[in-house]
Amino acid sequence: MAIETLEKAPNKPVSRVLFCGLHFPHSYKYTIEYLQKYPFIQVDVVPLEKVPEIIHQYHLCVVKMCRFDSALIAKASQMKLLMQFGVGLEGVDIEAATENKIKVARIPGSTTGNSVSCAEMSIYLMMGLLRRQKEMEIAVKQRALGAPTGETLFGKTVFILGFGAIGVDLAKRLRPFGVKILATKRKWPSDDSCCSTDEIGGLVDKKGTPENMYEFAGEADIVVACLSLNKETAGVVDAKFVSSMKKGSLLVNIARGGILDYNAVYQHLEKGHLGGLGIDVAWFEPFDPDDPILKLPNVLITPHVGGVTECSYRAMAKVVGDCALQLHEGKPFTVIELVN
Amino acid sequence: MAIETLEKAPNKPVSRVLFCGLHFPHSYKYTIEYLQKYPFIQVDVVPLEKVPEIIHQYHLCVVKMCRFDSALIAKASQMKLLMQFGVGLEGVDIEAATENKIKVARIPGSTTGNSVSCAEMSIYLMMGLLRRQKEMEIAVKQRALGAPTGETLFGKTVFILGFGAIGVDLAKRLRPFGVKILATKRKWPSDDSCCSTDEIGGLVDKKGTPENMYEFAGEADIVVACLSLNKETAGVVDAKFVSSMKKGSLLVNIARGGILDYNAVYQHLEKGHLGGLGIDVAWFEPFDPDDPILKLPNVLITPHVGGVTECSYRAMAKVVGDCALQLHEGKPFTVIELVN
Repeated sequence: MAIETLEKAPNKPVSRVLFCGLHFPHSYKYTIEYLQKYPFIQVDVVPLEKVPEIIHQYHLCVVKMCRFDSALIAKASQMKLLMQFGVGLEGVDIEAATENKIKVARIPGSTTGNSVSCAEMSIYLMMGLLRRQKEMEIAVKQRALGAPTGETLFGKTVFILGFGAIGVDLAKRLRPFGVKILATKRKWPSDDSCCSTDEIGGLVDKKGTPENMYEFAGEADIVVACLSLNKETAGVVDAKFVSSMKKGSLLVNIARGGILDYNAVYQHLEKGHLGGLGIDVAWFEPFDPDDPILKLPNVLITPHVGGVTECSYRAMAKVVGDCALQLHEGKPFTVIELVN
Repeated sequence: MAIETLEKAPNKPVSRVLFCGLHFPHSYKYTIEYLQKYPFIQVDVVPLEKVPEIIHQYHLCVVKMCRFDSALIAKASQMKLLMQFGVGLEGVDIEAATENKIKVARIPGSTTGNSVSCAEMSIYLMMGLLRRQKEMEIAVKQRALGAPTGETLFGKTVFILGFGAIGVDLAKRLRPFGVKILATKRKWPSDDSCCSTDEIGGLVDKKGTPENMYEFAGEADIVVACLSLNKETAGVVDAKFVSSMKKGSLLVNIARGGILDYNAVYQHLEKGHLGGLGIDVAWFEPFDPDDPILKLPNVLITPHVGGVTECSYRAMAKVVGDCALQLHEGKPFTVIELVN
């Protein structure tokens, strides 16, 4: 670390880091902790509605769930780097940032434990649906014993929709459960390997591209959405997709709420075509706890904590901290993945 | 199946199978379904308190959670086989059964999916504690987002207390999560392999006997009790054991409630030495939903459904059904494990 050099230049101006919004509290708490010995880096956090008034004072911004459109970017006159505490950059107008000479970056999930955390969370949600968590809670309250009869992961076919870093970590963990794995990806490392036993350590039984999506949905007992949200993937789990799924099959969303079409999912749950829904992410966040979809049987929600673990949050706080130090020193950014 | 032969002998008496207690409803529902085409086998289910009055009418009994002492066995004048819908026979006085020429048997968990089901359930409970299920529910209700900060299985050390069939299936599944595994067993297949990398496919990082129990408890982030309940194991997780565990570590019980000393566990949870408790089994069952231990932070309970899955219950119903047919035909029992 270049701290000694920097301490010799006490008049060097302070670099300012902004965290947008009070949610995901350990993102800024851990970053502040990591940077506390560097007094020339100042880390602030403000509620989302305050961001426009103060954004002009900051050099680095961690966007979290803030919508960063061209109007906001225009105000960010000193901004050098917009980054996510994670991978999802769907709220950032990257073109506008580029025009304003602001770099935009994500933190690769596979290097920080973010994908591992999300993979674990999706297995937790799958198991919650298979074991019928809501019914188990009722059974405990009613002093029932040995009910409900659940299902095992063992013997199931899981379709990983979007085989990125989370998908890889998920497949590795699901394998020894005795699960058959189907996965789609826009472009697999080797083009001719589509639908054959693959080279990624034999993790996937059947590989496909988005064209195979409906076919795979029809074969799976569980579908897990692991896609990043963009124009092509928004609402991709629509009525056509959900009706292609097997009767009674389960749907898990660990990615972004916008991947699922709310109405399609709601209707297919209500009529019993879908056997359950487990979501860590929702259409609006924080999600209305009284939303009718949450009242349907076998629907589980967690508060967008897939990647929010001690392990990944400490690692990501270090990445943000190191970026702030690099920015301050005028050095090139390492570790992060620049998208412009 | 010998059904044709038997149908030619319509006057042959009916064999009667009794399920004790209304809990675990799919145990008898699936068995009745499996046996419905054999009219010479009659399957009944009665509440526990009715068992003494009618036990003399039955030839085969599935004990479930019924206490089968010598007084009850004395009444079972036509009984040929007492068996469990699973593996736990702690309620049966085996000596008295032997004296009365009644065979006693369990269904080996590794052949029916019971151990797989229980292994999955223990991972579910671990994850529920690591992610702080109760706090997640509060976060959803309070519209918090990205909180609580959970923990991953990744990087943890898990101590499997009692490395039987469940332990093996558990270790296989935990391995790719990046977990270090410690395990104790009275007698390992090869005696000189204690505490070395083992022969069971390298599943266990450190093997020990009950003598190593406190040492292993002190190294683990999570302890999972997978022991069968008997005189030696009753209350083995006592104050000495729990205080040997690391501060903040987690305890999961998938075996039998009696393995844990209630007071020791309660006190160590209350003072924060234990970071969480996940139990599928309890000291009295069904467990009082208002028991103070359930009100403590990060305590989760499920209604004794570890082995209660479609997969294992269908398989075990077939085993009971086949035993009833073998009994009726006077053939030797297969599949089950006789203990006397």
